[in-house]
Amino acid sequence: MGIFSKDIKTFDDLFVHQLQDIYYAEKQLVKALPKMVEKATSPKLKQAFKSHLEETEGHVARLEDVFRMHGTKAKAVDCPAIDGIIEEANEVAGDVADKQVLDAALIAAAQAVEHYEITRYGTLVAWAKQIGREDCADVLAKTLNEEYAADDKLSELAESGINRKAA
Amino acid sequence: MGIFSKDIKTFDDLFVHQLQDIYYAEKQLVKALPKMVEKATSPKLKQAFKSHLEETEGHVARLEDVFRMHGTKAKAVDCPAIDGIIEEANEVAGDVADKQVLDAALIAAAQAVEHYEITRYGTLVAWAKQIGREDCADVLAKTLNEEYAADDKLSELAESGINRKAA
Repeated sequence: MGIFSKDIKTFDDLFVHQLQDIYYAEKQLVKALPKMVEKATSPKLKQAFKSHLEETEGHVARLEDVFRMHGTKAKAVDCPAIDGIIEEANEVAGDVADKQVLDAALIAAAQAVEHYEITRYGTLVAWAKQIGREDCADVLAKTLNEEYAADDKLSELAESGINRKAA
Repeated sequence: MGIFSKDIKTFDDLFVHQLQDIYYAEKQLVKALPKMVEKATSPKLKQAFKSHLEETEGHVARLEDVFRMHGTKAKAVDCPAIDGIIEEANEVAGDVADKQVLDAALIAAAQAVEHYEITRYGTLVAWAKQIGREDCADVLAKTLNEEYAADDKLSELAESGINRKAA
């Protein structure tokens, strides 16, 4: 979230601020995912990252819809959390010598991203309902469900052989 | 994770590196949680943060057990992800004027922390099993379950009135 002083006055301000935070995060992911596609060795993992990149582009568009529905201009604010998570992902990708160990590390990095999104969208859905915006909550819940599914898919890939090959 | 070059050669190295990452994260949380206790307005939320501080101290000790069981010296490596998550939590705590909106923001920040820990401990449990260390997996799973419970407790607090008061 950005540095500013006492700018968040109401619950609605907090909701918008959280939207701006995840909007920044999704846009950073659109930039980060192609590098993960490139680094992945397993064809299944490459494909999973590719599909998630497409989904992520959809999430950006969906957030723009929510901003529009809410009557607020779409805007991103710095999100040090996602920057830190992506920084760790890049570092680990550079640190691992063995290709199969790298795949396991990439899955873990991607799951950290998913969990960040799950917590933020979970909060946004709850807050949208609280401010009486069921319409926004419905749209945000679609993305939340896709993030849960992406996380499950990654667990499945890890358990179905990538970790075993790495070990 | 720390900056170093191709230091992670085996799956076991990756496991130890992830242990070092979460060890750093838990230690940062031991420092960050007292500030959240102080900032929280709702007595229930204050109490939840206090209990989780005690639990977090237990998680640090448990990680030291796992290092010992594994035969590795307990060591922390920088974890930009948790630093970013805590930075956001501090920023938002400074940005919110209204006390009840602040409580909702603090819950969201704490849930982002929980989800980071859930993803990392989830990965560690899976990896411990893969390298044949069921003993380490069992200890790590205890913490994982406590992080899930802490997250659920926060959702419950949010839904049971804090968000409603804020709205």
